[in-house]
Amino acid sequence: MSILAVGTVALDSIETPFGAEENVLGGSATYIAFAARYFTRNVRLVGVVGYDFPDEYLTLFREAGIDLQGLEIDPNGSTFAWSGRYHYDLNERDTLATHLNVLQSFDPIVPEAYRDSRIVCLGNLDPSIQRKVLEQVNEPDLVVCDTMNYWIENTPDSLRETLRLVDCLIINDAEARELAGEPNLVRAARTIRAMGPDILIIKKGEHGALLFCEDQIFSAPAYPLEDIQDPTGAGDTFAGGFAGCLLHNGNRSPEAFKRAVIFGSAMASFCVERFGPQRMVELKESEIHSRVESFRELSAIPSVSPIYSV
Amino acid sequence: MSILAVGTVALDSIETPFGAEENVLGGSATYIAFAARYFTRNVRLVGVVGYDFPDEYLTLFREAGIDLQGLEIDPNGSTFAWSGRYHYDLNERDTLATHLNVLQSFDPIVPEAYRDSRIVCLGNLDPSIQRKVLEQVNEPDLVVCDTMNYWIENTPDSLRETLRLVDCLIINDAEARELAGEPNLVRAARTIRAMGPDILIIKKGEHGALLFCEDQIFSAPAYPLEDIQDPTGAGDTFAGGFAGCLLHNGNRSPEAFKRAVIFGSAMASFCVERFGPQRMVELKESEIHSRVESFRELSAIPSVSPIYSV
Repeated sequence: MSILAVGTVALDSIETPFGAEENVLGGSATYIAFAARYFTRNVRLVGVVGYDFPDEYLTLFREAGIDLQGLEIDPNGSTFAWSGRYHYDLNERDTLATHLNVLQSFDPIVPEAYRDSRIVCLGNLDPSIQRKVLEQVNEPDLVVCDTMNYWIENTPDSLRETLRLVDCLIINDAEARELAGEPNLVRAARTIRAMGPDILIIKKGEHGALLFCEDQIFSAPAYPLEDIQDPTGAGDTFAGGFAGCLLHNGNRSPEAFKRAVIFGSAMASFCVERFGPQRMVELKESEIHSRVESFRELSAIPSVSPIYSV
Repeated sequence: MSILAVGTVALDSIETPFGAEENVLGGSATYIAFAARYFTRNVRLVGVVGYDFPDEYLTLFREAGIDLQGLEIDPNGSTFAWSGRYHYDLNERDTLATHLNVLQSFDPIVPEAYRDSRIVCLGNLDPSIQRKVLEQVNEPDLVVCDTMNYWIENTPDSLRETLRLVDCLIINDAEARELAGEPNLVRAARTIRAMGPDILIIKKGEHGALLFCEDQIFSAPAYPLEDIQDPTGAGDTFAGGFAGCLLHNGNRSPEAFKRAVIFGSAMASFCVERFGPQRMVELKESEIHSRVESFRELSAIPSVSPIYSV
């Protein structure tokens, strides 16, 4: 009953129409881990930070019960840093700077104690690094993977190689269209699943998510929030909540995946309510329950009987 | 038990990545009427066409049981003509030409026999013309209204005046943001409902629709279609199916509105499968039932129990 969260651990500088903060704890592995830990006590992290990574952030991880044995602290460089600015409607953002720093020479080592992880959740990273992690894990039950347009465009062959090892791919709609070379999402899903992942989740931001599993399609709504402070990390938080819910659930039925998509969506809806992972640090179990219940109410279709008369 | 469909009756010239057709039967009143007539035998149409309007199209309306007493045939001009070209992903389109023709001097006269209509469905038109129609109807149970960015930008005061008379406004997400001057849809909805409409439906194209009714929000999925031939008329078809379902249902509970949103969505999902209103002419009741059932399966969230363990 363990999840391996793999990805970046970053210092983010974020501007939204509602404020700006610098050196916020960020990165895909961070958000995955902080979401997954609501579902299991056994969240393990593989990533790298530099000499400048604040102790207080290490403390945050530890207090959240996240295992940091696999977090390399590289004394020869500074932490991966990203800065971005969100547009007025929060649906678009400009990346202002990306400093890879210690990520540039990152060669992930999975500690012996992590090799039995049941679910591996690969955050957005160079696909070759994602594979290096997979090579060091003993037959996990499920490999969940995120990626982005950069790898689709610049390392397509390496990405294809990684996709062959992935059970569940989580990408956004623009990425799905680009990866498949096909604007229609249903057809794009078929093309992508033929590349390896049995399960495909297409995230659509404020419009929810689509799950393709066996011969079923599931449409999950997004929670209509009135106050969104910062969308950073929502996708990774989705992946962490999704993986966590699946780990706990055990089975791999379409129903289990649908439920996991709703829990992932619920976790993501909390994430965006505050800057950085702040909300994910303080979340209460009762809040998660209540948000999941709201998702049910949001999309429940009242019973339908034959009601027309022509 | 009658619906009054008000709007344009047009000759459309449409280009999509999958083909092009000229002088296709189109217009908001057309699509509303062709969808609504699956729910009631009593669909009445108010609109105008010119001397060039093909007899075969008049026959199509009549064969569908749509009452054309309110369709003015203006011998002094030609029919309103629109031409547009859809982009690769079908989510965007360029209007190539709009020839108002007989619409320019349209002064709607609601026949005496139409004045007892229970639901008035106002398709996209100059808001002052929409009001002229409302003035001639005796206290309908429900006024449903569509509009577009052109009226939001160019006749804001007239639009506001019409909105005060509307029970249910149906617009897309970009229009909702523009009308409210607010990017967040939940807040935009509050602002718009304060302008008059108790009920607001925000259409999001391939992402479904949001219904705001009393203190509830309902998120309806879009049907994931593999083959979309032509999105023209989908919004009006939604409105026609929505109004038809409500007419038949009688009550005005949130459940009735949710159900109507699903029926509207189902009708719209058929509309886009063929060019123009072709699919809406030939639709079978059993197909509608089966599509509505698919919507239920698409968004049904499996039961959720407390499943995490921290």
